[in-house]
Amino acid sequence: MSRIVMKFGGTSVRDIDRIRHVAGRVAKVRREGHEVVAVVSAMAGDTDRLIRLAHEITPDPSDRELDMLLSSGERITSALLAMALSTDGIPARSFSGRQVGIHTDSTHTKARIERIDGARLEQSLREGVVPVVAGFQGISPSEDVTTLGRGGSDTTAVALAVAIAADRCDIYTDVTGVFTADPNMVPRARKLDRISYEEMLEMAALGAKVLHSRSVEFAMRYRMPLRVLSTFSEDPGTLVTEEDRTMEQMVVSGVTLDRNQAQVVVCDVPDRPGLAATLFRELSDNALIVDMIVQNVGQDHLTDISFTVPRSEARKTLRIARDVATRIGAGQVKTREDISKISIVGVGMRSHSGVAARMFETLAAEGINILMISTSEIKISCLIDEKYGELAARVIHSTFGLDRNEPGDPSRG
Amino acid sequence: MSRIVMKFGGTSVRDIDRIRHVAGRVAKVRREGHEVVAVVSAMAGDTDRLIRLAHEITPDPSDRELDMLLSSGERITSALLAMALSTDGIPARSFSGRQVGIHTDSTHTKARIERIDGARLEQSLREGVVPVVAGFQGISPSEDVTTLGRGGSDTTAVALAVAIAADRCDIYTDVTGVFTADPNMVPRARKLDRISYEEMLEMAALGAKVLHSRSVEFAMRYRMPLRVLSTFSEDPGTLVTEEDRTMEQMVVSGVTLDRNQAQVVVCDVPDRPGLAATLFRELSDNALIVDMIVQNVGQDHLTDISFTVPRSEARKTLRIARDVATRIGAGQVKTREDISKISIVGVGMRSHSGVAARMFETLAAEGINILMISTSEIKISCLIDEKYGELAARVIHSTFGLDRNEPGDPSRG
Repeated sequence: MSRIVMKFGGTSVRDIDRIRHVAGRVAKVRREGHEVVAVVSAMAGDTDRLIRLAHEITPDPSDRELDMLLSSGERITSALLAMALSTDGIPARSFSGRQVGIHTDSTHTKARIERIDGARLEQSLREGVVPVVAGFQGISPSEDVTTLGRGGSDTTAVALAVAIAADRCDIYTDVTGVFTADPNMVPRARKLDRISYEEMLEMAALGAKVLHSRSVEFAMRYRMPLRVLSTFSEDPGTLVTEEDRTMEQMVVSGVTLDRNQAQVVVCDVPDRPGLAATLFRELSDNALIVDMIVQNVGQDHLTDISFTVPRSEARKTLRIARDVATRIGAGQVKTREDISKISIVGVGMRSHSGVAARMFETLAAEGINILMISTSEIKISCLIDEKYGELAARVIHSTFGLDRNEPGDPSRG
Repeated sequence: MSRIVMKFGGTSVRDIDRIRHVAGRVAKVRREGHEVVAVVSAMAGDTDRLIRLAHEITPDPSDRELDMLLSSGERITSALLAMALSTDGIPARSFSGRQVGIHTDSTHTKARIERIDGARLEQSLREGVVPVVAGFQGISPSEDVTTLGRGGSDTTAVALAVAIAADRCDIYTDVTGVFTADPNMVPRARKLDRISYEEMLEMAALGAKVLHSRSVEFAMRYRMPLRVLSTFSEDPGTLVTEEDRTMEQMVVSGVTLDRNQAQVVVCDVPDRPGLAATLFRELSDNALIVDMIVQNVGQDHLTDISFTVPRSEARKTLRIARDVATRIGAGQVKTREDISKISIVGVGMRSHSGVAARMFETLAAEGINILMISTSEIKISCLIDEKYGELAARVIHSTFGLDRNEPGDPSRG
């Protein structure tokens, strides 16, 4: 008998038919003899409806009130799923975040979990009742409702799994697992059976939308095995877990393409200590999140500093960077939006040399110019011309041996 | 400066435009220097939508889960109204039933309030922040969400008003107040400026739908003045309060017609002690609520027992009454559904004689036969042929001097 947390996202509980289907999946695991805790998101569309109502009132609603408003979506789903389970003959009980003791700080709309009092969940499990928990929410020290921000329900699921020492946390989505690349872009992409926390984190940060990086960090910190699988398929999905010997011996686990970046180049920066710091402090004070940063060694005591920001922030960044450039005596500031970031991720890079060279050669062989490069221990990213993005993803996917033998419906991978 | 609880029903907060309008009304009272607590129902239609979802899953959802589900409607409205008030420049904060300390028993879907811890409301008022409370809900000793059943938000408002020693509880509806009769039936009906708790209770029990009798009972017990008024008009409404000298010296305050009754007659019941008790015990054990009861003195030691029940229960009642009749050796059992109950209510009856006679004479003058009569200290009801119902209401309304001088739009009364 295992103890399993099963989390279902918004598309999995979009309507009553799907909620019934989800109840069936939970019931099956329960009937196999496992202890089950279900965690649910709001029904797809519900949260958008509530946000729309709030924005009809004011473009800038208070965070505390938004949390009171939005948290109701998950409560609704939890009650409906508990009803569906009871109807299936599985005793079940809905719980709000407060009721299962999810205590957070007071940062409304993006609260952090501070502690979990798992007593009520334990009691429910002892009674043989399946707890159905409203995800995404907790309660602040002043007893106000808080929400956990993006990926909040995944975080709820992982945190509860840790609190009750579950054997595993299963995240049910509308895809069959984690893929070596986006199957829409790389038809020969295949589903991974296992992936390490570190790789999953890099892939989440690079834009693979299956899991939010926060829940992966949480799982990694507490060594909680995560499984990503589809509500609508019997595929066992992808296990996200600690790196171990039994893991497939692949150098690279996945290829991701991020089309949402813009490049900014500050030219002719005088080569004096502290000028780069001045620039990035100013950007950070304006809440701009900078991704890649490259500083070229220049001539005549002048350097170029290049970096990338989310494309939606390009104009704001340009304005601020130009201010700073004037102040520090740098030259012109240029932006480019027609670029993409292609990345490879894999723990195998730690023990394999030449991975970067192989990636650069592959791009060169296709005549693709590299604008910027940045690397971490298990990741290599190259900024390239946007128009070559999909081609680059496919050839790199192939180069590192990730292709399936037969292209086809990747969901059957 | 007064302390006022303002409660808004579902039609008053049906959409964002109306929520904005409600915010305007609350803001106006606040700006006049009063301390205000707002209590809200779910947006009209929201509760029905949630019930429909539950019934798509099961015809018989658990009461605990229904409460979790339905309580979200009021939470949504409270957050939206708090946002609208803040946008209007009035600091406001939403609260769930739990957050304002509404402790109930564990009877899900029709919980009773056991105590209220008003500390958080007091704190909010001290800070100059308008609390916006989700009506209809509380929390059980096991920390589960409960709802208060029909008229629940009115009850929330009155109970909070009592807990914080408010000067008054204003119930905003879609009518301008309590009328001497249903204006759709009696065009000359007029709005009452004041009415006593006792009269309001009788009228609520008789089917005047403005206030649920439970909230009136609560207000009466704690002597909390209630005001019924319209969200959409500047009319001061009707004050429901203790009977006092300044009250209009009317014998009768209102006329009501209940079309939802059925008459049952058990004929030829042997005149022995305990037989009537047997009948009504059996009906009560089957959860049938009997309204009027009349036992005629009969001949030959046989009596007829007549009573009324809600029309929807007529067939069930007939079946049970026939069983009992057989057992106790009574005669046939007959039902009639084409009847109505016309009633007059007024504390003036206590000090005026001849009121009943005047009512009977008025009906007789129109050739209306009386099938049954029942009276209380401040109420007289007659069961009559359904087809004469509206005529009876109009002539009695006139006889007791309730008519306005000019018929017309009663909402402008």
